[in-house]
Amino acid sequence: MAAQSVKTVAVVGCGVIGMGWATLFLAHGLKVILSDPADGAEDAFKRYLEQARKFISESGDFSQIIGNYEFVRDIVPRLGEVDFVQENGPERQEFKRALMKTLDEHTRPGVVIASSSSGLPSSAFVQDCARDAGRVLIGHPFNPPHLIPLVEVVPHPATSEQAAADALAFYRSLGKRPILLRQEVPGFVSNRLQAAINNEAYSLISRGIVSAEDLDLTVTQGPGLRWALTGPIATNALGGGGGPKGFAQRFERLGPSIQTWEDDMLKNRFDWSTERSAALQESVEESLRGTDWEKLVQERDSVLVRLLAAKSAKSTMSGQQK
Amino acid sequence: MAAQSVKTVAVVGCGVIGMGWATLFLAHGLKVILSDPADGAEDAFKRYLEQARKFISESGDFSQIIGNYEFVRDIVPRLGEVDFVQENGPERQEFKRALMKTLDEHTRPGVVIASSSSGLPSSAFVQDCARDAGRVLIGHPFNPPHLIPLVEVVPHPATSEQAAADALAFYRSLGKRPILLRQEVPGFVSNRLQAAINNEAYSLISRGIVSAEDLDLTVTQGPGLRWALTGPIATNALGGGGGPKGFAQRFERLGPSIQTWEDDMLKNRFDWSTERSAALQESVEESLRGTDWEKLVQERDSVLVRLLAAKSAKSTMSGQQK
Repeated sequence: MAAQSVKTVAVVGCGVIGMGWATLFLAHGLKVILSDPADGAEDAFKRYLEQARKFISESGDFSQIIGNYEFVRDIVPRLGEVDFVQENGPERQEFKRALMKTLDEHTRPGVVIASSSSGLPSSAFVQDCARDAGRVLIGHPFNPPHLIPLVEVVPHPATSEQAAADALAFYRSLGKRPILLRQEVPGFVSNRLQAAINNEAYSLISRGIVSAEDLDLTVTQGPGLRWALTGPIATNALGGGGGPKGFAQRFERLGPSIQTWEDDMLKNRFDWSTERSAALQESVEESLRGTDWEKLVQERDSVLVRLLAAKSAKSTMSGQQK
Repeated sequence: MAAQSVKTVAVVGCGVIGMGWATLFLAHGLKVILSDPADGAEDAFKRYLEQARKFISESGDFSQIIGNYEFVRDIVPRLGEVDFVQENGPERQEFKRALMKTLDEHTRPGVVIASSSSGLPSSAFVQDCARDAGRVLIGHPFNPPHLIPLVEVVPHPATSEQAAADALAFYRSLGKRPILLRQEVPGFVSNRLQAAINNEAYSLISRGIVSAEDLDLTVTQGPGLRWALTGPIATNALGGGGGPKGFAQRFERLGPSIQTWEDDMLKNRFDWSTERSAALQESVEESLRGTDWEKLVQERDSVLVRLLAAKSAKSTMSGQQK
């Protein structure tokens, strides 16, 4: 279904991720039908909307916008009304498999069914979609979904090109910056990249080479400042003098040094053993003990909003150049 | 030498990194004596200062500030005047070994000799420092050194605690956020973390799973936005609900999934073979072809300055909380 035809969205499962999606959809003037079996889920959503009041109010009158959702006990009888489904159930294969069967049975043909699964590929749970498994795919957001632009769109081998194109266009229409995986891999892209950096971080900390606090500072005061603005590939290219040949120049010049670092990293990989995990957690606890968490979250969100605003004014920084 | 006693700094080697250091030192009211054997090095430095005019002018009168440097042909006869040495010679072990011998011979006792080496540990080149190898260490900046706060201080096994403490205090007095490695490792911390993420990025791109362009977007529109604000450890802790127990909770809950991703990543590591390198470079070139590099650098620097200003106003974001 073309992006501009989507008027009503089903948000199936309304934990932290579902609430963020629903907030985003509402802020873009869509009607949202939500369901979640947990006690107190509807109240939690009301509190979430209240916390997102500033974000929502940028799109118009707060009360009017949040009047556009319905929280229902059973989503099934309402599935015929919706133009897009965003599923956010628990990350359990059997659960999702049964849920997808139901969603496929009761939605109209051509309606895309996107799962927020953060690592489980959809080929693991579309087996019972008897009508059209081809409109099922992953639409993996980054928390909080209403603020962070990234959505990873991951088709399974039988997802139709139309469904993938529709999902990409729909997310773009909401101001998101979706990326497309051409093939399923466990953990998708963002979680794999995070696992890569985290493993080396855990290794360095558990071996006592650097404190957890200094490890974090290394990133937030160094490479992290770049990664918010230019990705690994463009950063490499700029490190090689920029231009189309910059990447190749850096690759050749630094390749041999980098391979010696990689050898040492492989030899010292964090192996999740009890001993190394204990050393890691001890250092992490010591470093995090003095953190003012409430202040940290408040300051992070405040700087994040300013960072996104600064980036969105620049076409190369917001991924809109092409 | 205590940070407040440093009035004159020698910048030995004046390529891109040396010019950035000299700019930073000048902006903090220090006298700088520079040398570089390359033809045109002094002119290049004058152009660099001109480009950094806005940055320098924030500290006072531009002409007055830049009047505080001397570019000399031979630094040796001037080494007796300086209170700190920042060495930025080529990354070749034998070259640095001979240079360090000279610097150690001609500087006053207690003067810290810091090398900007980006991966070579200082134990590899202090063997001929006959007077006091204990004041030699790594002070590895991040380009451009006058803008990016990170400095990695890496002592060799015989570096004195006093020298390490003096270097940390001196860099802090310049508004930097130095971190201390307790032990030498190849690539130090920042380049190892970058190598970790880059290897997985190269793997995903060369295998055709994601385009180089989408790989970069994944980072700049997702995890990179977090890494500019909270490092990997604090990000993990927030993902586990925050607080001192957040890290452990996420570690236990997601550990098993992460290990399956890691297994798949290990199996598919980018191995720098000719075949995979060619596939990588082909995809990278295709993705970067349409990039407006001049605009990218301009926009990056403009957003970076705003990001740093937003962060510096917040104690938890600027690493000043403790």
